[in-house]
Amino acid sequence: MGKLNIKHDENFSEWFTEIIKQAELADIRYNVKGFVVYRPWAVITMEKMYMLYETELQNKGHLPAWFPIVIPESNFKLEAEHVEGFTPEVFWITEHGDNEKFEEKLALRPTSETAMYKMYSLWVHGKKDLPLKIYQRASVYRYETKATRPFLRSREIFWIEGHDCFATEKEARDQVREDMEMTENVMHKQFCIPFIFFQRPEWDKFPGAIHTYAADTMLPDGKVLQLPSTHLLGQNFSKPFNIKFLDDDGQEKFVWQTCYGPAISRIYGGMIAILGDDKGLRLPFDLAPVQGIIVPIFTDKNKDEVLAYCEKVKGILEMEGYKVMIDNSENTPGFKFNEWEMKGVPIRLEIGQNELGADTVTLVARTSREKVNVELSKLVETFKHKGKEVTDTLRAQADKNFEDIIHDAETIEELKDVLDKGGFARVPLCSIDMDGKECADNIKSETHGDIRGVRFDKIETPEGKKCIYCGKPAKHYVYVARQY
Amino acid sequence: MGKLNIKHDENFSEWFTEIIKQAELADIRYNVKGFVVYRPWAVITMEKMYMLYETELQNKGHLPAWFPIVIPESNFKLEAEHVEGFTPEVFWITEHGDNEKFEEKLALRPTSETAMYKMYSLWVHGKKDLPLKIYQRASVYRYETKATRPFLRSREIFWIEGHDCFATEKEARDQVREDMEMTENVMHKQFCIPFIFFQRPEWDKFPGAIHTYAADTMLPDGKVLQLPSTHLLGQNFSKPFNIKFLDDDGQEKFVWQTCYGPAISRIYGGMIAILGDDKGLRLPFDLAPVQGIIVPIFTDKNKDEVLAYCEKVKGILEMEGYKVMIDNSENTPGFKFNEWEMKGVPIRLEIGQNELGADTVTLVARTSREKVNVELSKLVETFKHKGKEVTDTLRAQADKNFEDIIHDAETIEELKDVLDKGGFARVPLCSIDMDGKECADNIKSETHGDIRGVRFDKIETPEGKKCIYCGKPAKHYVYVARQY
Repeated sequence: MGKLNIKHDENFSEWFTEIIKQAELADIRYNVKGFVVYRPWAVITMEKMYMLYETELQNKGHLPAWFPIVIPESNFKLEAEHVEGFTPEVFWITEHGDNEKFEEKLALRPTSETAMYKMYSLWVHGKKDLPLKIYQRASVYRYETKATRPFLRSREIFWIEGHDCFATEKEARDQVREDMEMTENVMHKQFCIPFIFFQRPEWDKFPGAIHTYAADTMLPDGKVLQLPSTHLLGQNFSKPFNIKFLDDDGQEKFVWQTCYGPAISRIYGGMIAILGDDKGLRLPFDLAPVQGIIVPIFTDKNKDEVLAYCEKVKGILEMEGYKVMIDNSENTPGFKFNEWEMKGVPIRLEIGQNELGADTVTLVARTSREKVNVELSKLVETFKHKGKEVTDTLRAQADKNFEDIIHDAETIEELKDVLDKGGFARVPLCSIDMDGKECADNIKSETHGDIRGVRFDKIETPEGKKCIYCGKPAKHYVYVARQY
Repeated sequence: MGKLNIKHDENFSEWFTEIIKQAELADIRYNVKGFVVYRPWAVITMEKMYMLYETELQNKGHLPAWFPIVIPESNFKLEAEHVEGFTPEVFWITEHGDNEKFEEKLALRPTSETAMYKMYSLWVHGKKDLPLKIYQRASVYRYETKATRPFLRSREIFWIEGHDCFATEKEARDQVREDMEMTENVMHKQFCIPFIFFQRPEWDKFPGAIHTYAADTMLPDGKVLQLPSTHLLGQNFSKPFNIKFLDDDGQEKFVWQTCYGPAISRIYGGMIAILGDDKGLRLPFDLAPVQGIIVPIFTDKNKDEVLAYCEKVKGILEMEGYKVMIDNSENTPGFKFNEWEMKGVPIRLEIGQNELGADTVTLVARTSREKVNVELSKLVETFKHKGKEVTDTLRAQADKNFEDIIHDAETIEELKDVLDKGGFARVPLCSIDMDGKECADNIKSETHGDIRGVRFDKIETPEGKKCIYCGKPAKHYVYVARQY
């Protein structure tokens, strides 16, 4: 105990299972398949992640609401592609009390378009009601048939969903870009997770969307993990849900819509996977449940004095709003160092006779692990500075690992090689419309690689290249990866 | 629009319906019975209420966790009284996808004892694991058969539930007191809601509890509303759920438990009901979505100057962290005054030519409605001071209305009179054990009054009094009220 003995880079899957157990992040022993219990050390961080994401959404003009968790089957069926896409995954409530049947069964929301848009049609009348930008913090439920894993793939997902309506298509397209900008501001800058936004091929869109743009990141084992996605819904939902406004020209028009879904529990999973190391978790300074852990080092003789000094140091940092704890358990200092490194606390403060005598504190950042001894008068400033250093280092290291993970492949053999090594393969493909699906299916069955789509951040034209599978002229460079 | 035309004190029920609509707090048109949509103006405040309550829970040593929303029927049935009490209200998930049946049906949690305590039995082994103090922010689902009403009685409840385990009965009883102290710190001091804690009679306890203590407040129509309750569970759950620890004496013992459930959506309903007035909502300063509304008063000539000055004032207050808005809609100032008073904004700032010329701002508190003109240099200080004044006034007025609502009654006729006027009747009762239930049932059917229990804050002995119903010697003074 206290120490993690698995290599993060060499044996990621086992590392992930073990860190969840040892750092007490989640408990997989709950007796319903696909549902886990999220424990305090993870939940405190996920609550901070919610707060930061919601602040960003509010800064961009979104307001919070709470919609019901149950959706009547008739609402759910209003948009044909949507119902086809989601029905296999729905949990249905059919009874209450002692075997009393509901007249109409109720879906436990897998996503909330069909709950929200009926209300939107009651709220939107004229241009003054637009844009309508609403989000909710909610949990959603999907009967996932693949193997489930805490955080990364569960039947219960803790997320945020933003659902916006606009008068024009242009505003909706701008919102898609704003969603990507929020993803950068929060996911990358604050959570330290690098990603690429891809426009998904036609066969892999959100059911009912015109286009789906999804942020893919890469886990340490070279497999891709989908993080927030933003969808241009166009008028595909506003028509069946009858969301109309009276435009300046006196015409009634259907609104243009977008939706955006950052899944906090999944992002947390991606974050700990990407930022961790052989010693355990590493957490950005602002997200850590405990930002500074004080480890007292004492003998029987100076114990009281050392502990009193620890309390003083704790008080100074708490006055500044930092979350600081003293580990005064009976474990050895070495055990404590390992334990709190495993739990990802950004800064350790060592306090013993030397520090006591000189009115100093020794600080050790989780990232560099270098010892720095500072005078008490410099404590607050150094603590703050070290905190920022930890976050910046984590982001820089994650960004660095995210470089050089793209390799070109022009034959299926090359593609297999690239995927075996891990990361993205860039390949020429005939089409990302439905006529390219057959090639995608064949690629998937021969290489286990998924077509993640085309980059959104740059246009890449495969001049003169042939489709890696069918040999027809390639319209796009697409990115292929094995999926988590 | 803009103005509410219903008397809060004379026609409360209609006032409540109308304020929900006009202030856009909730929409009752969602097409599943008993489920409503909570809209931004209410949700922003409820999010702040969550934050304040969670901070208090964490300050008292509770940690947050997230447990699954689904509970297998077999867990649910482990504690006999609990299952009997809750089964009639449960929503059951029986299918997924296209009519695929689950082997065991799943309850949508009506409360989480039976989800959490199975895990607690895996987490608690020795004294080092105790006390275990965990809460979760969650929504719970109850198939309520009485008429539903937004906030006050819904089938979807947004709440917090705290579930604690202790080594001794004494610590559990102390926790009950701490729960009451938290209720005072948050509900009364911050949300301005007065209440009395009653120990409920045996027939009205939480299913499975040894004792239930509930905070009752009084709505403007003289009906009682139950707010947070705390339950001494004793070992009633730890035995069937097998939550044991190895005590210092080498014996394995079952833990002692408590649970505590503040329902944020319901408390919000109680708060707006109690604090409102004829002009609409009144919100405590720290809970208002907008703390200061700036109403510009201009002519065509000075419009730009006035609006620029409004922006300056807004900037000054926002720098201090206050939430301030400028209403630059095309409505008249009078319309705006009514509208923002209706929405309960604590402080209005009026800015016109006079203010512009003199570098001042005119502030109007929602409570006193007195105009105060201050120099810009005094703005921040006055705004803060007025904000506190609003909250203190709301609390003082609510406390005052809560005085003199208790009247003694010694006959059924007197009891009816008291209840017709509204408020609590204090009556002598033979017993609050099960042998008093028959009297309680008869009182209920003859007066529509519910026995709320005996006061927790003082011992009241009805020396020589007879039970108001059966005439046997009375053991207790109990409080009777008509329930919301």
